[in-house]
Amino acid sequence: MTVRVGVIGTGMIGQDHIRRLTKVLKGCEVVAVTDVDRARAKAAAATTPNARVFDDSETLIAADDVEAVLIASWGPAHEAAILPALSAGKPIFCEKPLATTQEACLRIIEAEVAVGRRLIQVGFMRRYDAAYRALKATVEGGSIGAPLMFHSVHRNATVPKDLYTSDMAVSDTMVHDIDVARWLLDDEVGRVRVMTPRRNSVGGALRDPIFAVMEMRGGALATVEVSVNIGYGYDIRGEISAEQGAATLAESNPVVVKHSGTFAGRVPADWRERFIAAYDAEIAEWIAAAAAGGVMGPSAWDGYAIAAVSDAALKAADTGEAVSVELGERPALYDA
Amino acid sequence: MTVRVGVIGTGMIGQDHIRRLTKVLKGCEVVAVTDVDRARAKAAAATTPNARVFDDSETLIAADDVEAVLIASWGPAHEAAILPALSAGKPIFCEKPLATTQEACLRIIEAEVAVGRRLIQVGFMRRYDAAYRALKATVEGGSIGAPLMFHSVHRNATVPKDLYTSDMAVSDTMVHDIDVARWLLDDEVGRVRVMTPRRNSVGGALRDPIFAVMEMRGGALATVEVSVNIGYGYDIRGEISAEQGAATLAESNPVVVKHSGTFAGRVPADWRERFIAAYDAEIAEWIAAAAAGGVMGPSAWDGYAIAAVSDAALKAADTGEAVSVELGERPALYDA
Amino acid sequence: MTVRVGVIGTGMIGQDHIRRLTKVLKGCEVVAVTDVDRARAKAAAATTPNARVFDDSETLIAADDVEAVLIASWGPAHEAAILPALSAGKPIFCEKPLATTQEACLRIIEAEVAVGRRLIQVGFMRRYDAAYRALKATVEGGSIGAPLMFHSVHRNATVPKDLYTSDMAVSDTMVHDIDVARWLLDDEVGRVRVMTPRRNSVGGALRDPIFAVMEMRGGALATVEVSVNIGYGYDIRGEISAEQGAATLAESNPVVVKHSGTFAGRVPADWRERFIAAYDAEIAEWIAAAAAGGVMGPSAWDGYAIAAVSDAALKAADTGEAVSVELGERPALYDA
Amino acid sequence: MTVRVGVIGTGMIGQDHIRRLTKVLKGCEVVAVTDVDRARAKAAAATTPNARVFDDSETLIAADDVEAVLIASWGPAHEAAILPALSAGKPIFCEKPLATTQEACLRIIEAEVAVGRRLIQVGFMRRYDAAYRALKATVEGGSIGAPLMFHSVHRNATVPKDLYTSDMAVSDTMVHDIDVARWLLDDEVGRVRVMTPRRNSVGGALRDPIFAVMEMRGGALATVEVSVNIGYGYDIRGEISAEQGAATLAESNPVVVKHSGTFAGRVPADWRERFIAAYDAEIAEWIAAAAAGGVMGPSAWDGYAIAAVSDAALKAADTGEAVSVELGERPALYDA
Repeated sequence: MTVRVGVIGTGMIGQDHIRRLTKVLKGCEVVAVTDVDRARAKAAAATTPNARVFDDSETLIAADDVEAVLIASWGPAHEAAILPALSAGKPIFCEKPLATTQEACLRIIEAEVAVGRRLIQVGFMRRYDAAYRALKATVEGGSIGAPLMFHSVHRNATVPKDLYTSDMAVSDTMVHDIDVARWLLDDEVGRVRVMTPRRNSVGGALRDPIFAVMEMRGGALATVEVSVNIGYGYDIRGEISAEQGAATLAESNPVVVKHSGTFAGRVPADWRERFIAAYDAEIAEWIAAAAAGGVMGPSAWDGYAIAAVSDAALKAADTGEAVSVELGERPALYDA
Repeated sequence: MTVRVGVIGTGMIGQDHIRRLTKVLKGCEVVAVTDVDRARAKAAAATTPNARVFDDSETLIAADDVEAVLIASWGPAHEAAILPALSAGKPIFCEKPLATTQEACLRIIEAEVAVGRRLIQVGFMRRYDAAYRALKATVEGGSIGAPLMFHSVHRNATVPKDLYTSDMAVSDTMVHDIDVARWLLDDEVGRVRVMTPRRNSVGGALRDPIFAVMEMRGGALATVEVSVNIGYGYDIRGEISAEQGAATLAESNPVVVKHSGTFAGRVPADWRERFIAAYDAEIAEWIAAAAAGGVMGPSAWDGYAIAAVSDAALKAADTGEAVSVELGERPALYDA
Repeated sequence: MTVRVGVIGTGMIGQDHIRRLTKVLKGCEVVAVTDVDRARAKAAAATTPNARVFDDSETLIAADDVEAVLIASWGPAHEAAILPALSAGKPIFCEKPLATTQEACLRIIEAEVAVGRRLIQVGFMRRYDAAYRALKATVEGGSIGAPLMFHSVHRNATVPKDLYTSDMAVSDTMVHDIDVARWLLDDEVGRVRVMTPRRNSVGGALRDPIFAVMEMRGGALATVEVSVNIGYGYDIRGEISAEQGAATLAESNPVVVKHSGTFAGRVPADWRERFIAAYDAEIAEWIAAAAAGGVMGPSAWDGYAIAAVSDAALKAADTGEAVSVELGERPALYDA
Repeated sequence: MTVRVGVIGTGMIGQDHIRRLTKVLKGCEVVAVTDVDRARAKAAAATTPNARVFDDSETLIAADDVEAVLIASWGPAHEAAILPALSAGKPIFCEKPLATTQEACLRIIEAEVAVGRRLIQVGFMRRYDAAYRALKATVEGGSIGAPLMFHSVHRNATVPKDLYTSDMAVSDTMVHDIDVARWLLDDEVGRVRVMTPRRNSVGGALRDPIFAVMEMRGGALATVEVSVNIGYGYDIRGEISAEQGAATLAESNPVVVKHSGTFAGRVPADWRERFIAAYDAEIAEWIAAAAAGGVMGPSAWDGYAIAAVSDAALKAADTGEAVSVELGERPALYDA
């Protein structure tokens, strides 16, 4: 009943998953770790009761006692870890992005289709957040009618000046909004535009904020504000405007404090504070599914489609024009 | 169609009513003013197009062109102004309190009953506030069932240290909560207790805060927190707890600001900010009723009953015991 | 001290202004009315103490006792009323639109500039709404930094099926959002796009909802959702996203009711409920300014600029492309 | 690193803890169960990988592989399970109440003091709720000044008509409010009054609602509304009123839905929905402490003090008078 997990990539996010698998979640243990930085892998292994350190992902995946593989290495290394894990028939949790090119995503999809059952869950954790789930349930419940628009707001207090590039506002940040737009509206993106207002002076030369408009294939519109240096906190908002109603994510603060002329609630400081429970739920569901031999949740197809929208959005941000999103046909494996 | 008003008492509140009658409200004009301080009366008259200054309230009330009388003098002078105005059959607006003793209140009631129609409206302005009206409408609408409890919170940012006494927390401040409790629950108070927690150190020797529990004759309970040095603002809250639901006054701020880790709305600074529109509505309804020859709204009976509860509450605060509120029989004139 | 007003146009909105001038606001009276439907004008006059009925706007404007002119006729008749009123030097309140073509707007501006002082106030009443004013004050206060985006949501419960055309979603409805975007961001619109999601099936063939993106000349972005058949109520939302914070219009309901598994507040039913106080404040400020001989508030320039954006938006809705907004140079008369 | 737990009592709440220990929380497993109903114990054991069924609590406690004891039997059986577990030096989690008489509570305290270290955690789970923790942190943070009053509202949608007695409104329901009042104000109760408004007709002869006023020894006041048939949901509210501010538990709903004239959020249906995460956190902290050999959280002293207040409140409800709460001296073991 305990799923033995091998972890590939022991950077910040990998370490956090190791902590989660070791200290928080039932039914799993970390038995193997690997990282391009062997010292870092050893340090991570030392935080577990009995994980072994492997030289590379291939040998880790091949190890008999590794029953499921969690990939938290950097994006360019994902494909090389996913393909052998698929061949080995081991359930995979892969942090976003699935891969860094659409071609690599398609190869992964081809390989998973060849296996004949879903083995890959991609790390779009908002789908496991209680608030987004309630929003989705409201839409599906039908009381507000068919959704016509989704407005998403994604604000970070700050991003690291030396590491964060203008493209990352799309490829690292907005990908989450692309995912929830597709998921909430149950549809694919047809075209995308990205508009660039005057820059936030706090971010220097960074293209920030941006405003994207996605035309869904069924005709709904999804709009996204991304602001990554807004200072006041990590603020994730979303509203569905439908034929006979609307539904909005509520503030998530627990206490209202009245002081000095205001009543005030807390805005989360960062994604950890806002989504920690969603990360737990995401991995818990993966472990449960892995114990049963398969996976659910965001699929390789989602990873591919989001990459396609993200690529189109980057082109759209450069040209100012609407860019079509070309998608291959979705294999039946990914039918809901 | 224009009601010509005489104003007795031109202190702060009297001046504010003169401004309202002169600059804000349709259908009225101030034609006469008087004050124990004649210079102050002259200054007030100078803010109107053509008000005359009278030596005393008797001559003002007797003046032919004074069609309605607004009394904003201090409490001990109210009876002496009300009785001749009643005799003259002129509609009266009297600021709270109606009078400073229950005996005086009863003499006023007797005189109004002798006239045979309502001529007195007492200045309990919360009944004209849009939020309290919506609360009352919710209760009367019946959707939440019969009310069982009312919890009222009355907080002032601060009170003047040299003028405000411990008794005023009841007789000046809590009287508004007594009024709305009676009005919302459509009932009289049977007994009242006043509990005194540890004092707010900001208020020095002032008995502050206090917590009152009123047992209504029909069995409902009304509780009141009065805090008069809470610093952060003027905060008026109220909740009805009923058989199958509850209804609560909402925050009244217009804008939520997100900054520095919080989302925040404004708490009103003082009673002017919170209730300015209610004061306008109160006097507008009085003018409209006066133009038609009578009055509506809080009556002399309300003024008397509130005085009786206030007196009982002061005794209760001293003894710590429950004190019964003795009321005479209500004349039919005051049936709703 | 009483401003004598002539009212041109006694349809629904004209009648409402006559009521306001006659029954609500201090310092004004209606002395003259006219309408293309003389019977309707007579009926309107009958609701006032002593207004005369005129045959046409020219003679009404020329009447000696008409000190100020309120224009509530239909749009195509505005210019013909404004120009003689300007010549007569009488303060004008003109309901939106200022005129139905940009050329007519420019002729009006030219005439007002020739007069040499502002005489025209245009009826964009949101600027007089307490919530929008608090939003503007927040932006100007500087605490959240320079504004980068404004997101406006304009939802009507329903529109009359036989009267409301697709173009009116821009020219009648979105004009208010155009106005507040310009006002809050203190800037003119450079380009506008209008995107059209799948139609709300409730509205039949109506182009509803629409989503507009306005690029302001200073680089900020203003986005507008217009949904005119959303059923649940009249819902006006707005948020400024700035360099170091954000500010949002709060819900305006006075009471929260807990019942049957929810806590709920009221959404206004229509524009009357939401903006009645703003209409009062708008006309009150016009009367006060007219008494002093001039006007303030939304100007003929605003009327012209909004018409220019509206025209561009209608073209943009047809083509799907961004359309530039061409504006002449703003006369110094309209500097703030 | 895995704490092996024996569970005494396998009714509804015991089964829920077994599920939690087996399926949710890391670092623990259920190795032993017992119940007065042996069939029920067997059924519960069958939901775990390898728990044995014991004849009685004594043999279960004595078993070598039982490292910690969770007591979920009915109240009268608690003392007989706690005392041998204390003697055995095994960490104990005991569902509320600690015991059904103050005398039993004192015997338990004496036994724990004799052991010389804390081994008992009592099941007052609100202290593990994120919202209450944020409220406590606000008070301790000092920004609002010293607390003067705490107002607690405890509303149940409904209670089982055949099982729930009037006394249970105090001994089963209000005990949680007593606990958080003591915890938030960091003080003991000196006197308690219980007032009984008109009964909710939905509850038949049940004394419902009740309103309690607790005078804390340091002078603060804690007030509690308990309504157990209010229909609309499970609504837990709390507000601290302090010297220079106030802090209030916020609504906990994730989504606001606009529909049919209202905006609405969800009220939790019952205590499971509201406090499920607090139950998880409570047991997780117990397991973590047990792994380290001791316990933290609500103590036997808390269990005793709450029982003393509850007994006084029951007397107060019968007499209508204020009843003093007599407490022995608190052993140093329970100093914070």
